[in-house]
Parts: sequence; structure tokens; C-alpha cells
Amino acid sequence: MANAKYPTSAAKVALGHQLFFDKRLSKNHDISCNSCHGVTTHGVDNQPTSLGHKGQRGGRNSPTVMNAALHVAQFWDGREPDVEAQAKGPVMNPVEMAMPDAKRVEATLNSMPEYVTSFKKAFPDDKSPVSFDNMALAIGAYERKLVTPSAFDAYLKGDDKALNDAQKEGLSTFLAVGCQACHSGVGVGGGMFQKLGLLKEWPSKDDLGRFAHTKKDADKMFFKVPTLRNIEKTHPYFHDGKVASLEEAVKLMGEYQLGKKLDDKQVKSIVTFLGSLTGTPAAEFMKEPALPKSTKTTPKADPS
Amino acid sequence: MANAKYPTSAAKVALGHQLFFDKRLSKNHDISCNSCHGVTTHGVDNQPTSLGHKGQRGGRNSPTVMNAALHVAQFWDGREPDVEAQAKGPVMNPVEMAMPDAKRVEATLNSMPEYVTSFKKAFPDDKSPVSFDNMALAIGAYERKLVTPSAFDAYLKGDDKALNDAQKEGLSTFLAVGCQACHSGVGVGGGMFQKLGLLKEWPSKDDLGRFAHTKKDADKMFFKVPTLRNIEKTHPYFHDGKVASLEEAVKLMGEYQLGKKLDDKQVKSIVTFLGSLTGTPAAEFMKEPALPKSTKTTPKADPS
Repeated sequence: MANAKYPTSAAKVALGHQLFFDKRLSKNHDISCNSCHGVTTHGVDNQPTSLGHKGQRGGRNSPTVMNAALHVAQFWDGREPDVEAQAKGPVMNPVEMAMPDAKRVEATLNSMPEYVTSFKKAFPDDKSPVSFDNMALAIGAYERKLVTPSAFDAYLKGDDKALNDAQKEGLSTFLAVGCQACHSGVGVGGGMFQKLGLLKEWPSKDDLGRFAHTKKDADKMFFKVPTLRNIEKTHPYFHDGKVASLEEAVKLMGEYQLGKKLDDKQVKSIVTFLGSLTGTPAAEFMKEPALPKSTKTTPKADPS
Repeated sequence: MANAKYPTSAAKVALGHQLFFDKRLSKNHDISCNSCHGVTTHGVDNQPTSLGHKGQRGGRNSPTVMNAALHVAQFWDGREPDVEAQAKGPVMNPVEMAMPDAKRVEATLNSMPEYVTSFKKAFPDDKSPVSFDNMALAIGAYERKLVTPSAFDAYLKGDDKALNDAQKEGLSTFLAVGCQACHSGVGVGGGMFQKLGLLKEWPSKDDLGRFAHTKKDADKMFFKVPTLRNIEKTHPYFHDGKVASLEEAVKLMGEYQLGKKLDDKQVKSIVTFLGSLTGTPAAEFMKEPALPKSTKTTPKADPS
């Protein structure tokens, strides 16, 4: 998923790949991007909310990094425009990776000659290539490679056998019920904001969604519509990760978003179709890369 | 509909009432706020799009000014936060009232001693009370008085006889169908943005709604959900005013927003309920006020 605003290169992607896996970008050297957005586990950690610095947990479920670059905006509330901007957030968030400031990140990166060389290669025209901003750009370049072609894509391209009969029937149910109203486009979701509890008030108002970011009444309970790609594997569901089963999630969507009580057959049929949206990125991007060795000047892990 | 941000006063409302009716706030002295938002015609002109300077017409239907102060934002795309901010737009819009700049508006107001006195009374703490900004504040103060209590409000307050049986049945249909998903709250609409063509692609893409203002893909085809108060009287419907009958509008909403083919009985029933949302503001605010006389220094009508 290239973006004209962010020119990519093999050097940038390779550097981003390392940074994505580097726990030394967290205060206590115990959390990397990959900890919560595991690239071998469909971009998630399958926890309701993720484990951060000192065992803290935030209020929202870690959304999958797979295909995130396709989304209209980042985070459940869309507060950042793209994966490059998003990548800075968790590194600094005190309940996530908890780095105190950009300086410490840059000191960490500068302490390892291999990183310094890689940043120079990735940002050849940059006078100060080792920077917090460039860290985020490199991570973004890597994340743009995390797209997961699926059986459904093959089917859309004309391979009629890419879906089995049950999946095709499920697709019909999905469309007849109206799921595509919001879960549409290349991400099968991720393209718009919608009110959670559109036709029936959502039971929990602990998190008001986009309102928390914009403070506009019109944004109360609006969340970014999640992608359905890999949805079978990215449980638990919803912004708070409170629903464990996909069947239950589909049922709730029918009831609260579409005003329809789906019967078990319909739910099962939709879930069957959703399985065809599972895929993995290219194998090279799923590997755990070798990381530069720490040096004497690398800031130490700080559990405080 | 008071607002703590905009302290009101009788002097401010009375001045705003005059300004709302004053055609000399348009370049050719032929259009006032009231021309398109007629206060004796439920806040509209019942035209698909309104007549502006030199017979020009804009692309969007003039929404009712009645209860507009209750809305989450102003204009179909919500680009202004409140009626005070909105009031400046049409005065300057070249296809509406077409004033060239704030200076000309202020010259017009300053040319009439009665207006100068009224602005001083309305803005007693202001060193330069006669200003374009204060014009908008006064108009806003007047518009906040344009609320229209209806039979439905009486019913909600416990007067069981305020609705007849057919209207009560219509309310049930309205709720069963799911109209209140978006047409909710004190304005029975006006409280959120929603995608037009949520469950089925809206046939016309000439106007992309909020996207035109924000340039964000996620806002494509999102419009402010219109209030249903006075909807029976504020035809024609939708942002482009292309649908003349309320029955047709209700049918389209079922089909495109809720994925439901409503039968004639349901449509009729909902329309019957909607009639209970009609009301008028207090009689004093519907009167055409006496306006200050022009003087020798009042800028002349300019048809160019």
C-alpha cells in the first residue's frame, strides 16, 4: 500500500522492520510494536486490551496492523491520519511503551552504529537522518507492506473457485443483511466513521469514541469502522475488546447497527464468509529480524 | 435555545429581528435572511434551491431556520458551529446576498442612526458596537428564539391526548422502522452527521456533502442529519431539494438508509406521525418588524 506522500525504499522498509521489533524503543526494553501487533498473529495480540509499561493496560483493544495503511485514518477514533503518524503514539504513551521523550528514542538509536548506518541509507538526503520522526517514517514504510491478500480477493478478481459454496452463500447473507453499508471498500471496513449503536443504544458508554478526540457532540459513539480482513483471527472484538466470539460480534452488529435480529443460520453463514478474508503478508515481512547490538552508551532498561 | 457562550438580551433579539428582515444587507437590496428562511413559512422558501443575487441559485436547499440553534452544527455540511457563525455566510456569499465585504455591511448599518442606537443598546460594553461580527451575533440571538414546540413535545411531556391514535401508530412505525437511529434528540435530527446512502448507494454524487468542506475521504456523502421538526412544511427535501413529496422522502430513507422497502401503509403512517412535529415560534418573532429608514449615506442597491 504505497503512498505518494511517503516515498518508500528497500532500505526504509528493512529499517522499519527492525524498529517494529525493537523492544529498546520502550522505556523498560520489554515492549515493541510487535508485542501488541504481532505480525505472525494477524497483527494483534488477541488480548482485550494490551499489556503496556509496568503491566498497565489502556482502554482500547489493539487493532490489527495488517492492512492498517489502507484505512482512512488511524486509531479507533481516527485521531492520526496515517500509519506514519500513528507510529509515534504508542512509543510515547505512558501506558504503552512509555518513552519519556523523543530525545531518549534518538539517544537509543544513535547509540548503535548499525542503526545510524541504516538511517543514513533509508534517509540519504536528510542532514540528521537519525530522528524520532524518521523512526516513524521507517516503521510506516514497513507497515505499508503488511497487506494480506485473501481468498475473497481472488474471488473478486474472477477466480470463481476461490470461495467454496458455503462462503459464497455467506457473502450473499452478508450483502443481504447490509454489512457492506459500513464494511466496504478495499479494507472491507476501515474507510469511514460510524456510530456504534446506530439503531439501538450501545450498552456501554464508557468510551465515547471519536468524541474523546474532537469534543464534538456529533462524534459521540462514532468509531472508525474496523476492517473485516483477518477478523476471524483478530479476536476479541470491538474497541474495548469485550466480545470474545465472532458469532456474538456479528449478532450484536445486526442488532445494534442494522436493527435486525439475525438467526443462528445467518450468523453462521456470515462468519463462514468472513473466514475468506483471512490472509498473511509476504513471508519476508513476518520474520523476526536480527537487531543491532546495544552498546555501552545505549540507555538502559528503566522499570520505573 | 439559549447558549452560555452568547449572552442574550431583549435589545439584541430585537435588533437581530430587524437585521433578519433587512434586504439592505444584500448587495442589490433584494434579499434578506427571511427571503430564504421565511419565519411565517416554517423557516424555508419551499424552493429546491433559493434565489440569490442576480437570480443565481446555489447547489443546496435552504434548510429551515426554525430550531436550527438546536443543531450540532450549521449548514448541510456542518461547516459552521452555530447560528452566530452561520449568519455571516449568506450575507457574503456571491450567489446569495453578495455583499462585497464587511465594510460595506458596516457602512450600511452606520448610515442609519436608529441602527447605531440599537447596536449600542445591544452591545453596551463594546467600543465599536456597529460591526459585521455583532450583526451576526444579533441575528443569532433572534434565531435562538425560533423554536417551535409541537404536539409531539406535549405528548412527550405526558399529555397522552396530544397525539391522536393515527399519530401514535405512526410513532410506533417510526420507531419500529428505525428512523430514530439518526433523527433523534431534541431536534428529532440535527444532532449528527450520517452517510446519505448508507445501505444503498445514493443515486446522485454531484454533492459529496461534508467532504467538500473537510476533504477527508471518510466524509464523502456525509451530511448533517436534518431535523424532522416541521418536516411536513419544509419541502422539498434533501440537500439538493430534489424530492418534492414527504412520502417519497420517507420511502427513500427506508430504502437507502435502513435497507427496508417500506410499504405504502408504513410510509403513510410515518408521515402522519411527522405531522405532529409541526409548530410555530412565538407570534412576536414571526412579525415583520419596522426597519430604520435609509439615509443619504446609505449605500445604494447595486444590481451588478
